[in-house]
Amino acid sequence: MSLPLKLFTWGTPNGHKISIFLEVLGLKYETHPVDISKNESKEDWFVKLNPNGRIPTIVDPNFKNAPTEQGLVLSQTGAILQYLADTYDKEHKHSYPFGSAEYYKTLEYLIFQVSENGPIQGQAGHFKVFAKEKIQYGIDRYVNDTKRIYGVYEDILSRNKENQSKYLVGDRYTVADFALFTWASFLHKLDIDIEQWPLLAKWHAALAQLPGVQAGLKVPAV
Amino acid sequence: MSLPLKLFTWGTPNGHKISIFLEVLGLKYETHPVDISKNESKEDWFVKLNPNGRIPTIVDPNFKNAPTEQGLVLSQTGAILQYLADTYDKEHKHSYPFGSAEYYKTLEYLIFQVSENGPIQGQAGHFKVFAKEKIQYGIDRYVNDTKRIYGVYEDILSRNKENQSKYLVGDRYTVADFALFTWASFLHKLDIDIEQWPLLAKWHAALAQLPGVQAGLKVPAV
Repeated sequence: MSLPLKLFTWGTPNGHKISIFLEVLGLKYETHPVDISKNESKEDWFVKLNPNGRIPTIVDPNFKNAPTEQGLVLSQTGAILQYLADTYDKEHKHSYPFGSAEYYKTLEYLIFQVSENGPIQGQAGHFKVFAKEKIQYGIDRYVNDTKRIYGVYEDILSRNKENQSKYLVGDRYTVADFALFTWASFLHKLDIDIEQWPLLAKWHAALAQLPGVQAGLKVPAV
Repeated sequence: MSLPLKLFTWGTPNGHKISIFLEVLGLKYETHPVDISKNESKEDWFVKLNPNGRIPTIVDPNFKNAPTEQGLVLSQTGAILQYLADTYDKEHKHSYPFGSAEYYKTLEYLIFQVSENGPIQGQAGHFKVFAKEKIQYGIDRYVNDTKRIYGVYEDILSRNKENQSKYLVGDRYTVADFALFTWASFLHKLDIDIEQWPLLAKWHAALAQLPGVQAGLKVPAV
């Protein structure tokens, strides 16, 4: 890798997933803040990069045979994390070899995060914290399902006794862990106490100590 | 591949994603119906396979060095589709080589489907069709966002002029197309007319003609 990656991001759980993983892998990157409170992610220049108009997005100028002059442009946290692991974690410190069972279990739990944990907890946040009308039905529906989902993750950790339930998959932190971590860090905003899931609480506290996690949470510095 | 794959499924958009792709790839598989109207996916035997208690789940008994006696057990449609493409589409009729730009753009749009299209359209269906209370706020929120998301997919197709906007990525149908197809087929239940997106409407009509798609939609035969 010669040129720094470009990270278009903001200080949200989804943005932090990527800055944390970049820090954990020790990659060079430039941060481009996209202020979502000013709707900057809906501006034309950004929608050209990501038709969905949402941060985070990365551009990797080092990509060979890139489809654009800028390099590979990629959005969706699940896809970005998978790309970074595949491309820049050749020693598999935070991933498993392509084609292995652990590779696909990591993908399963990563996708569980992006397709259920994130969307449902996001809706819980909307109804509980952001919505201008108080709609009890919405609060109950999504807060309850958020709790159910963390219960499932507790179950997943409990199945990894071989590794003292420290990781979602196998014997190392992977993108499945980092992705869940940033959302689990916001549970208190829903008045949900992570301590009700003892393995998850320990898992969360351990991840919070990692230098890469601490550095990634400070991005963007605005 | 010697032994048939096992598919635990039900006749839902998420179930059909997998049966369609298995048919498109021409793979041998046994169907195990899991009646979600009877909560069978929450029964102990199924939760052992998928801690999240949701169909579909596959078991591949041919997987080498499988972590369980049964073989590789995998859930989450995004992970299953990616696994099947990586493993059983070696000629890349419906995928791109690992590591290519198209591989990751396929993953981006697949994850956009599982993390936004599916969850948001699912919530729209809940508030519009299934909820016992009529909550206009919920209907509006999710129906409007569903429309926004299909507008994004229309934009994605419009960017693929090189291939007459026939595919989401490049010059062939991939898991990104098949995953979106099954959800697009349910838009009418929300009184949303797909014809408002001309490229998507054509795309959907063309996919609906494929023999593999038609066969997959009949699974499970109960």
